[in-house]
Amino acid sequence: MADYTRLWSELGLDLEAHEKLLQALPPTYYDVYLAQENRPRGMEYFDFVVNEIHGLRVQELQDFRQKGGKVVGTFCVFVPEELILAAGGVYAGLCAGIEIGTAQAEAVLPRNICPLIKSFMGFKLARVCPYFESCDLLVGETTCDGKKKAFEVLADFAPVHVMETPQKKEPRDRELWLEEVHTLAARLEDLTGKRITRETLTEAIRKVNAKRRALQRLGELRKADPPPLSGRDALLIYQIAFYDDVERFTAQVNALCDELEERVQNGVGVVARGTPRLVVTGTPMAIPNWKLPYIAETSGAVIVAEELCTGARYYEALTDEEGATLDDLLANVAARHLEADCACFTPNTRRLEKLLEMVRAYRADGVISYVLSFCDPYAVENYQVEKVLKQAGVPVLKVETDYSPHDAGQLKTRVQAFLEMLGAVAAQAGAAT
Amino acid sequence: MADYTRLWSELGLDLEAHEKLLQALPPTYYDVYLAQENRPRGMEYFDFVVNEIHGLRVQELQDFRQKGGKVVGTFCVFVPEELILAAGGVYAGLCAGIEIGTAQAEAVLPRNICPLIKSFMGFKLARVCPYFESCDLLVGETTCDGKKKAFEVLADFAPVHVMETPQKKEPRDRELWLEEVHTLAARLEDLTGKRITRETLTEAIRKVNAKRRALQRLGELRKADPPPLSGRDALLIYQIAFYDDVERFTAQVNALCDELEERVQNGVGVVARGTPRLVVTGTPMAIPNWKLPYIAETSGAVIVAEELCTGARYYEALTDEEGATLDDLLANVAARHLEADCACFTPNTRRLEKLLEMVRAYRADGVISYVLSFCDPYAVENYQVEKVLKQAGVPVLKVETDYSPHDAGQLKTRVQAFLEMLGAVAAQAGAAT
Repeated sequence: MADYTRLWSELGLDLEAHEKLLQALPPTYYDVYLAQENRPRGMEYFDFVVNEIHGLRVQELQDFRQKGGKVVGTFCVFVPEELILAAGGVYAGLCAGIEIGTAQAEAVLPRNICPLIKSFMGFKLARVCPYFESCDLLVGETTCDGKKKAFEVLADFAPVHVMETPQKKEPRDRELWLEEVHTLAARLEDLTGKRITRETLTEAIRKVNAKRRALQRLGELRKADPPPLSGRDALLIYQIAFYDDVERFTAQVNALCDELEERVQNGVGVVARGTPRLVVTGTPMAIPNWKLPYIAETSGAVIVAEELCTGARYYEALTDEEGATLDDLLANVAARHLEADCACFTPNTRRLEKLLEMVRAYRADGVISYVLSFCDPYAVENYQVEKVLKQAGVPVLKVETDYSPHDAGQLKTRVQAFLEMLGAVAAQAGAAT
Repeated sequence: MADYTRLWSELGLDLEAHEKLLQALPPTYYDVYLAQENRPRGMEYFDFVVNEIHGLRVQELQDFRQKGGKVVGTFCVFVPEELILAAGGVYAGLCAGIEIGTAQAEAVLPRNICPLIKSFMGFKLARVCPYFESCDLLVGETTCDGKKKAFEVLADFAPVHVMETPQKKEPRDRELWLEEVHTLAARLEDLTGKRITRETLTEAIRKVNAKRRALQRLGELRKADPPPLSGRDALLIYQIAFYDDVERFTAQVNALCDELEERVQNGVGVVARGTPRLVVTGTPMAIPNWKLPYIAETSGAVIVAEELCTGARYYEALTDEEGATLDDLLANVAARHLEADCACFTPNTRRLEKLLEMVRAYRADGVISYVLSFCDPYAVENYQVEKVLKQAGVPVLKVETDYSPHDAGQLKTRVQAFLEMLGAVAAQAGAAT
């Protein structure tokens, strides 16, 4: 990586603390990613992006801002990326998946709060995230109590706009949400000084849809046995989707898919055919939270699909590109962004239906229900997840964890026991047929 | 107390577990309540109600149900009591303030969830709450993640209707909430088989307003120095307000107020004039959660006001009784019930303004910011509470606790240290003038 010290210094980062953070990543990345066998060549781009995680992309954002562009930080799949692009801005996902700035975060937040929230607050307060410092506006939402209230704290340190995500999906909730989308559009126009028009929004929707389609294509390819890509690599791609340049990213995902298609045709996989296949469902895994996939995939399983915000919830729905007026398009954007079956909704039964469908479509042998500590929506909804899966005869392992490495050994033991159980179930099924 | 074994048995309670619960209360009640000096005579009624907590009132509810009446369980100040009465029903607050049925609750809920939620789930699953078993419908709300999602679990064990409380107070939120009030009205009519009319709703609003006015009157009397009533006794009254018969309760509160007025005129208090005065703000204290007030008031302070749902948030706003049509009245009910400044709202700055006003009006020397463990909305909003109070020069002590007795010693030490600090501040202020 080139020397970006001047860039980081200009952004006001705490250079010493930031250096420590950067030092911590490479060995982890080597173990989790580079040590994998049979990786597709197309992953090189994504390795490069991670290698330059606080460098090249940040430089791009700064160049963009120097030409008058505005960068908008986001924390959730509910915030419409196409609106930000249509207003001439650029989005940057700020959810964070590593323990950092904990002391600073705990000075303003309760200790017992979800690690994702503590992490983004820590990144901001410890001044070690060049993306945070590149943002001209942060767009939060009310998807959970912790985030909703943490954005009030964050507003003491940066400009914040909060979208009210509803808690049901009734017609009145859709109306409220549509108004929230209009309000965000106006706020973005104020920020960038550019009008969102039918033309700019159409173009933006097409760009973001192209990204979603590329990710859908990637997802489809993972249905093969053996899958042509590891779950870890897929997760990395979803994580990068939140902050990389939309067109370059889309092209790179499609190029990777070309390669994966060839692999599938030739029966080439990252693991042996018949490797136990897992679906992961639950709380999002923000970059660089690779703990569970790494443990699962170095224990003899492969993750084939994610019912996560860093997964299908991010890309499965497209925004309707057809609209006679700007208002029509804004309605399309609003409708699309209420599709995600987040545990913030009550009831949220469609998540369960889709999860079962995903298990079938991806021929998964089992499910890991993944819950970040203190994430009440997913932790409580896990009751429904386990109930429905058990009724359907799908083995499920609930994992509650945080960003600390300390439970890795215990997790590995539990995942291994789960995989042994899956093997026994498969052997039994084989004997019975 | 008479023998209610047959009643409890008919309600399907686990008699053995229930007996243990009943045994546990009297010694606590003696220490916290009966051992107080200078108590007003008017507290006898409320002592009687507690003594009969699972007896007489439950019998009344059963008698009411046997005549075809319906009992509706509630968990929050947002659920309009007047609607339930107008539909010919009776409400019963089900929030719970004691560790109970923990093993059963933790079988369906995460361990790290707020004790209030764990408690009501425990009461239900361990079959030890005759109120729960008397309910024909439970009305939940979406005020916090934990409750919102726990109601989905509860729906496996009892009929539940969930109101969507909005997260902001914009016009679109008021519209959504008004529709939720209409939906609840229809559901209650279905339940009771009785129409809510302009007449029945007017009468119900008047009854509940009379209760609120009585509680407002009680609150006003506590402004005196010395206050004529302890904070513990006031809290008990607020707790009983959620499930006692509305007219009897109102009459008893007013009778108590008559006595307290006389006390104030004669300068008679429950503590000596000049006793340090505290306001408590934060998470509700459901019956029989008396831990903090007991500790504070046996450490040399007196609590004079509560910015709590078991306090001012419950009674401070009245519902407008004037309306030409039923729809007008429903709009009044909806408007009134969005008044509460719950931490579920973002932003929630009016809570802070009202808290400061309360501190001034009640001439409080300090504030205890009370947070139940794992209650994200109040735990995170505590940042704002402390900030605003410190800016105003009001001493504040943050207390995070649960229903366990184990931290009582540590809490007492902290409260005593806080009171010593208040004394030093007062002495300094006295020396300066």
